[in-house]
Amino acid sequence: MTKKMRVAIAGLGTVGAETFRVISERKDFILSRTGVDIEIVAVSAKHKDLDRGIDISKVSWVDDARKLSSLEDVDVVIELIGGSEGVAKDVVEKSISAGKSVVTANKALIAHHGMAISRGIKENNVMFGYEAAVAGGIPIIKTIREGLAGNRISRIYGILNGTCNYILTVMRETGRSFDDVLGEAQNLGYAEADPAFDIEGIDAAHKLSILSSIAFQIPINFPSVHVEGIEFISPIDIEFASELGYRIKLLGIAEKSGSGIQQRVRPCLVDVTSPIAQVEGVFNAVAAEAEGLGVSLSYGRGAGAGPTTSAVVSDLIDLAAGRVTPVFGVNEEDLVNEPAWGVENLSGSYFLRLLVVDRPGVLADLTAIFRDEGVSVEALLQRGRNPEELVPVVLTTHETDEAAIHRSIRKFKVLESVAEDPRILPIESFKE
Amino acid sequence: MTKKMRVAIAGLGTVGAETFRVISERKDFILSRTGVDIEIVAVSAKHKDLDRGIDISKVSWVDDARKLSSLEDVDVVIELIGGSEGVAKDVVEKSISAGKSVVTANKALIAHHGMAISRGIKENNVMFGYEAAVAGGIPIIKTIREGLAGNRISRIYGILNGTCNYILTVMRETGRSFDDVLGEAQNLGYAEADPAFDIEGIDAAHKLSILSSIAFQIPINFPSVHVEGIEFISPIDIEFASELGYRIKLLGIAEKSGSGIQQRVRPCLVDVTSPIAQVEGVFNAVAAEAEGLGVSLSYGRGAGAGPTTSAVVSDLIDLAAGRVTPVFGVNEEDLVNEPAWGVENLSGSYFLRLLVVDRPGVLADLTAIFRDEGVSVEALLQRGRNPEELVPVVLTTHETDEAAIHRSIRKFKVLESVAEDPRILPIESFKE
Repeated sequence: MTKKMRVAIAGLGTVGAETFRVISERKDFILSRTGVDIEIVAVSAKHKDLDRGIDISKVSWVDDARKLSSLEDVDVVIELIGGSEGVAKDVVEKSISAGKSVVTANKALIAHHGMAISRGIKENNVMFGYEAAVAGGIPIIKTIREGLAGNRISRIYGILNGTCNYILTVMRETGRSFDDVLGEAQNLGYAEADPAFDIEGIDAAHKLSILSSIAFQIPINFPSVHVEGIEFISPIDIEFASELGYRIKLLGIAEKSGSGIQQRVRPCLVDVTSPIAQVEGVFNAVAAEAEGLGVSLSYGRGAGAGPTTSAVVSDLIDLAAGRVTPVFGVNEEDLVNEPAWGVENLSGSYFLRLLVVDRPGVLADLTAIFRDEGVSVEALLQRGRNPEELVPVVLTTHETDEAAIHRSIRKFKVLESVAEDPRILPIESFKE
Repeated sequence: MTKKMRVAIAGLGTVGAETFRVISERKDFILSRTGVDIEIVAVSAKHKDLDRGIDISKVSWVDDARKLSSLEDVDVVIELIGGSEGVAKDVVEKSISAGKSVVTANKALIAHHGMAISRGIKENNVMFGYEAAVAGGIPIIKTIREGLAGNRISRIYGILNGTCNYILTVMRETGRSFDDVLGEAQNLGYAEADPAFDIEGIDAAHKLSILSSIAFQIPINFPSVHVEGIEFISPIDIEFASELGYRIKLLGIAEKSGSGIQQRVRPCLVDVTSPIAQVEGVFNAVAAEAEGLGVSLSYGRGAGAGPTTSAVVSDLIDLAAGRVTPVFGVNEEDLVNEPAWGVENLSGSYFLRLLVVDRPGVLADLTAIFRDEGVSVEALLQRGRNPEELVPVVLTTHETDEAAIHRSIRKFKVLESVAEDPRILPIESFKE
């Protein structure tokens, strides 16, 4: 008799409904890949009677998603509710405790509670698929955890939030302001009504902390991620960056060195000819660097019903086929707590944009401060002339310590001729 | 007691030596990922006493690689000799028959004998890893066969040969001729002394036939791949293409439609802003398109010791961890023989470059032929003026049948004013 895998879906938003549709439609396809007959037996969502374009009349309906975990005839619970606490967390925890495997798209939950989940998975001898949690249309969890498993990865980086990348792309293409483009993105459904998680970089940081764990075999350490968002990026920053041969991207970067792990999410400048600079609009990309390998980069859609469902269904196929990987790539006892270090210890090149009074001697003051801090200027651009009025000035530096940049900035801010806080953006460069 | 996996390596060229080094060096790393203690117990190569920077004194040496298959204490044979026939084929076949799992980088062998290998793997209940056979630095076999397993893939395409991409990139950057750049590539070690397999597109076709099988769940059908190489591409083609906003790339493309599968390797024009056009130098990239998913693209180094070893070791880790996938993604009885159709049934846009006598009426003759064949011209460019001498002319078309292009070409060739055979390059466009 053919083996069966009975599935419950918690959450029937656009992703949940699409997952329901694809599983129902591709039973034979999944059977040919796994030898397992997959069947949806139960669903739960906030409202039962919405028209979602799917027929849920033949499966059990449960009002409280938590109860899916206690259904006897369920082998796997797919959690598509979202959020690090509340119902989503309860569903995942209770399902695991009840001996059910779990597939989820919930990055926030894993970033905050991944270690506890991983222990539960091991204790209960079940499986946990979370490919959909990071860049759905790119099988990046599998790529790093299995496909590149033979490498000692030294750095990962990527564009992990499609909303931010869409906003930055449109700002560059049109010269429009952040607020204006954000409003449009909200209207188009590319940004949430409350966009804070996306634009402040938190969503990207959730994903980065997950990728760091599997890339470096460390416990997830979300609080150690340095996070900055894109809400302060102005059209003038983008314009100056373009003029200098760069694009501004919100990147998540995690790197391993002798002194530990550094994780950061912040807008930065990347060379316009680099592969990561070519990633535009709602697309995501994740790259891994390792000695010998060089760079291996994956590109695709990060969010939306189709890409997320692709990841969920692929996880189900792995699960049905019995392909098991430890949650974070290695056995939990082999995860090593590496020291986390902050951005203040970084060094690199930087882009600074200031608003200064257009007056003789101002540039001399700025460059003297840099000289005193040992910072070497690579380029200096002033936009327009407007004696005794405010004009934007951009400075880029050669390789220097980030700490020296911050000391310089503190001195800049004391100058009478410098209006508003200078904007600092790191210039990142990557392996070929 | 810790489980052991005993490995033999057939072939100690740059890839074999690097594989030996990495496995020896990362035993603990592999143990933490798999719980299995990996050990190299035997090697074989043409010459025993070469200095390869590795210490083979503690493992068994076998003069004839075929004999590795009969060693009692070997669980896995890694075949890194290469070639579709001869020793490599014998090693793989005999190892499988002897109940050993096999890991290989041998694309030619799989393209020609993949179906027989797959049957042997099943009959002998062993495993077969061939991630290294296609784009070593990109885990594309795993990505398509597992990571995107939930999708019905409609098209795959990619830059599958780094040598060709390097030559085309340098030709574009420098304006130098094919022969000149090929010679340089040979000196740099980017091209073989006998470069035919690479530049004629055969290597890319081997890889495409493997990717098609796992993308579309069809038996490998290498003979049905239409293959053209890059040896006829001239600097003038590249220059005209650039002027029109395109780059010339040797692409492998396989697509599925209601009437079956079309597989082709040929140089073609791609929009300079498309992600695939950004793949330069020795880099490879492979993209998959599917409904819902959109496009998922992976990018990295295709060849060389480091990237190939990355793939070999990742396969060994899968093998040690017991993660099994059917050789071509689905059980063999579920592979479906789809009809293969030829390029003559394609339609699309085309780029034609002709050498014509610069004389009134010539363009009228050409465009009249196109009109008669129902081909609509999009752009027409003539380079220079040189009355009664030969000048190059380029025509691009709107969407048309490839058959109509070939009929037109036959008529062009009859014209007295047309010198040499016109060059036809398809213009390919892809999903976002």
